[in-house]
Amino acid sequence: MMIKRFTVLVLACTLSLSLLVGCTPSDTEGTGSDNNVAVTSATPKYIFMLIGDGMSAVQVNAAQVLTGDNVSGEVAVNQLNFTEFPVLGMATTQDSTSFCPDSASTATAMSCGVKTHSGVIGLEVNKQTVATNICELLKDEGMKIGVISSVTINHATPAAYYAHIASRNDYYDIAMQMADSGFDYFGGGTINKPTGDDKDKQDAYEILEEKGYTVADTNEEIAALNSSSGPCYAVTPVTQDSGSMNYAIDAAADELSLAGFLQKGIEVLDNENGFFIICESGKIDWACHANDATATIGDILAFEDVVDVALEFAKAHPEETLIIVTGDHETGGMTIGYASTGYSTAFDVLNNQKMSFTAFDGLITEQKKANANLTFDQMMPLISENFGLILSNNTAATEDNVMVLSDLEEQKLRNAFAETMKPAEERTENDETYLLYGGYEPLSVTITHILNNKAGIGWTSYSHTGVPVPVYAYGAAADVFSGSYDNTDVFKKICEVCEL
Amino acid sequence: MMIKRFTVLVLACTLSLSLLVGCTPSDTEGTGSDNNVAVTSATPKYIFMLIGDGMSAVQVNAAQVLTGDNVSGEVAVNQLNFTEFPVLGMATTQDSTSFCPDSASTATAMSCGVKTHSGVIGLEVNKQTVATNICELLKDEGMKIGVISSVTINHATPAAYYAHIASRNDYYDIAMQMADSGFDYFGGGTINKPTGDDKDKQDAYEILEEKGYTVADTNEEIAALNSSSGPCYAVTPVTQDSGSMNYAIDAAADELSLAGFLQKGIEVLDNENGFFIICESGKIDWACHANDATATIGDILAFEDVVDVALEFAKAHPEETLIIVTGDHETGGMTIGYASTGYSTAFDVLNNQKMSFTAFDGLITEQKKANANLTFDQMMPLISENFGLILSNNTAATEDNVMVLSDLEEQKLRNAFAETMKPAEERTENDETYLLYGGYEPLSVTITHILNNKAGIGWTSYSHTGVPVPVYAYGAAADVFSGSYDNTDVFKKICEVCEL
Repeated sequence: MMIKRFTVLVLACTLSLSLLVGCTPSDTEGTGSDNNVAVTSATPKYIFMLIGDGMSAVQVNAAQVLTGDNVSGEVAVNQLNFTEFPVLGMATTQDSTSFCPDSASTATAMSCGVKTHSGVIGLEVNKQTVATNICELLKDEGMKIGVISSVTINHATPAAYYAHIASRNDYYDIAMQMADSGFDYFGGGTINKPTGDDKDKQDAYEILEEKGYTVADTNEEIAALNSSSGPCYAVTPVTQDSGSMNYAIDAAADELSLAGFLQKGIEVLDNENGFFIICESGKIDWACHANDATATIGDILAFEDVVDVALEFAKAHPEETLIIVTGDHETGGMTIGYASTGYSTAFDVLNNQKMSFTAFDGLITEQKKANANLTFDQMMPLISENFGLILSNNTAATEDNVMVLSDLEEQKLRNAFAETMKPAEERTENDETYLLYGGYEPLSVTITHILNNKAGIGWTSYSHTGVPVPVYAYGAAADVFSGSYDNTDVFKKICEVCEL
Repeated sequence: MMIKRFTVLVLACTLSLSLLVGCTPSDTEGTGSDNNVAVTSATPKYIFMLIGDGMSAVQVNAAQVLTGDNVSGEVAVNQLNFTEFPVLGMATTQDSTSFCPDSASTATAMSCGVKTHSGVIGLEVNKQTVATNICELLKDEGMKIGVISSVTINHATPAAYYAHIASRNDYYDIAMQMADSGFDYFGGGTINKPTGDDKDKQDAYEILEEKGYTVADTNEEIAALNSSSGPCYAVTPVTQDSGSMNYAIDAAADELSLAGFLQKGIEVLDNENGFFIICESGKIDWACHANDATATIGDILAFEDVVDVALEFAKAHPEETLIIVTGDHETGGMTIGYASTGYSTAFDVLNNQKMSFTAFDGLITEQKKANANLTFDQMMPLISENFGLILSNNTAATEDNVMVLSDLEEQKLRNAFAETMKPAEERTENDETYLLYGGYEPLSVTITHILNNKAGIGWTSYSHTGVPVPVYAYGAAADVFSGSYDNTDVFKKICEVCEL
């Protein structure tokens, strides 16, 4: 009831703004984009729904602290471009079964406006009734639709924008729904399990092509895609984990980035009827699950580049572009502040990290393969090289060197190394080891815990949490995203401003 | 630069709203107050600055989860009244020396608009130049000023609204500045160290009376205060810790609450020139320091009552009342989500807690005094009675009883009890015990850790953190508080809307 009344007010308010273009979000120090329209009254014709999976205000501020001024005596954060948006909201994220929800249900809340069970995509709480998603509604209005993700394209979050299925794990079926979606552009990660769980199904890429999609999976093919290409899928040529794009920290300088996939999406989708693009930075979440702050921040900064692409487009369509930046839930229970470091932080220690936990997992596997009797002393130089941590007997271990492991930290590292060297079936499994390692490679997760704690970053979980997520809004009809609300309201507000 | 331009826009926008009263914040399920004006364009004449010390979005949502629906299968939060405010902002809180700042510097940022060192009140970063605070500016405009806190009235946060001093620990000098402030109403906690560190100074209460203040410290005297009383100080008759008010969880039903002190403040201050009231709920912070979620949530719910008082006043002055609700920083690195509980939460276990950690500390002291050879088995019934935790050999320890201590939890509790029973000088002091106890009574903090973890709540620190804080705004000129900004902007925005 109130929402409608407030909307009337906001619409009346925004109407009064139509004469007042030229308002920009704060360009204080920081990346301050040269945005030239912060809020307009028009019905949005170009909508960017940019989702940092697992990203709440803490992850964002961690990136702001690391790239801010931490050492010169002038403590200051470096405002990320989307924190300069003029409108802020905050969404609660609980789903129908949990206050610590999953990406399937939270993305469904935002894409379809309904609460459902963890693990369920695009279906109501009865797990059967199809909930129409925002892409389907806008497609019917003549808009073109793009779905982009840095993780696999049939992972829960992107899937919630085109699929309706009771289990997020039915990857092959989700890919089939992708092929049947009729949507115009898919970009980013690969298809997970393209021939099904048992690798006995027709290849999903082949089916996409049969349905009329151009599948471009080389830099050259992707570069060639444009607004005449028809429906297409730009697939990252470089993968990590289960077919996702690399973490930004692991990516080569010339590797196609998530921002690149969005840029390409705009080129493909730009048309006079407008478009809706959902673009997910999915590995912020994966890094947070593993409690790896450096990889998290790396992907948030890459996500800022994604937002820059949208802002650049908004310059050319100043009164008709709406940009929404949010998270689907928080992951890891990240905080800027750790018991041992108290009121101090030292984020610059994170700069010692050279690769993600995933890449280091790979390095461990290689080392174990090369030497079954690998010792802690043999592993330690690799830890020093890639994370900066050194033992107290190291010649560089001066008293004021924060990278020196304390006795307690060294003991934790040695214990973790011992676990890592055990075959999977012999690893210790009890409450304490779960708290310590959370099912991750014991050595890697212990390294990032120690490094993060030295920086002054704490984590409470390896799962998603019930921490609310900020909603940053910019551009056409952005005002309606102000205030506190439920994540299902994100869908409702888009419908409202698009008059659906 | 941008801020001014955006303000022009917002002012233009709010002008257009002057014909549109009648907009209310969402009254969905929850405590939804019957507010009847959400945003108006008038210059605010009555300003409520309501600060939850140590309160960020997580603390707020924890209260929403506990009072929401956690058990009936319909997972839902119970929106607190201030989360229904139409305008939301988020403020970064770092001070000039730390990303994990203290209450002196953060309150100074909000009261005076300057960054300064941790521990410094009302002075610029050189620790010498006086920074004029918002109360002084508005007093000069003819408004009456009220300062209220649930902790001692010369504690850092309230002090930042009337004092200018290099150290927050100079309690007596702060009390002297309070007596010289000329402000109209003080309420809530007592004066800490009223006769100085060495108890050799003239009593501060006496000095306040000499300066013309009525000091009311009984329920009857406080009840008698009204708009004819002249400058006055309503002092809680019931204290805890160093002279603060009781935690809400420890308070008797008929005890004067923080909301009561605000209500009295309104009665004293209401006048045709308007007023500015800063009201701090200071023990949210203290409970978070000690990682006691139940006491935290109890004080947040009491803080909601404070907001209700302000909203009730706003009904009578719908176009001229501005209500700002925020935190000064986050404390404790609280999250809703813990490694052991993963995607589950069980907030209802918090309802087993009958008193704050502080009150239980008192109980421990009593027990130790009564029996120097107190055993764990003798203490356990008190733990069960006040926190619901039981040993696995308890007859109530059925398999599905979440209150049964696991082996690991029992071991932690036994270790903590052993530490608690040691004389202070014999306690173990190393990195590990600091992580476990943070300087708190080992048994009490271990109990709240275990109980909180069972609920699905994690903590990362015993200190303040660098987590940004939400700013909820309602009423006259509330719009300017939208978006992300620095805590110094809270002062600047109030100046702006008050045309100072």
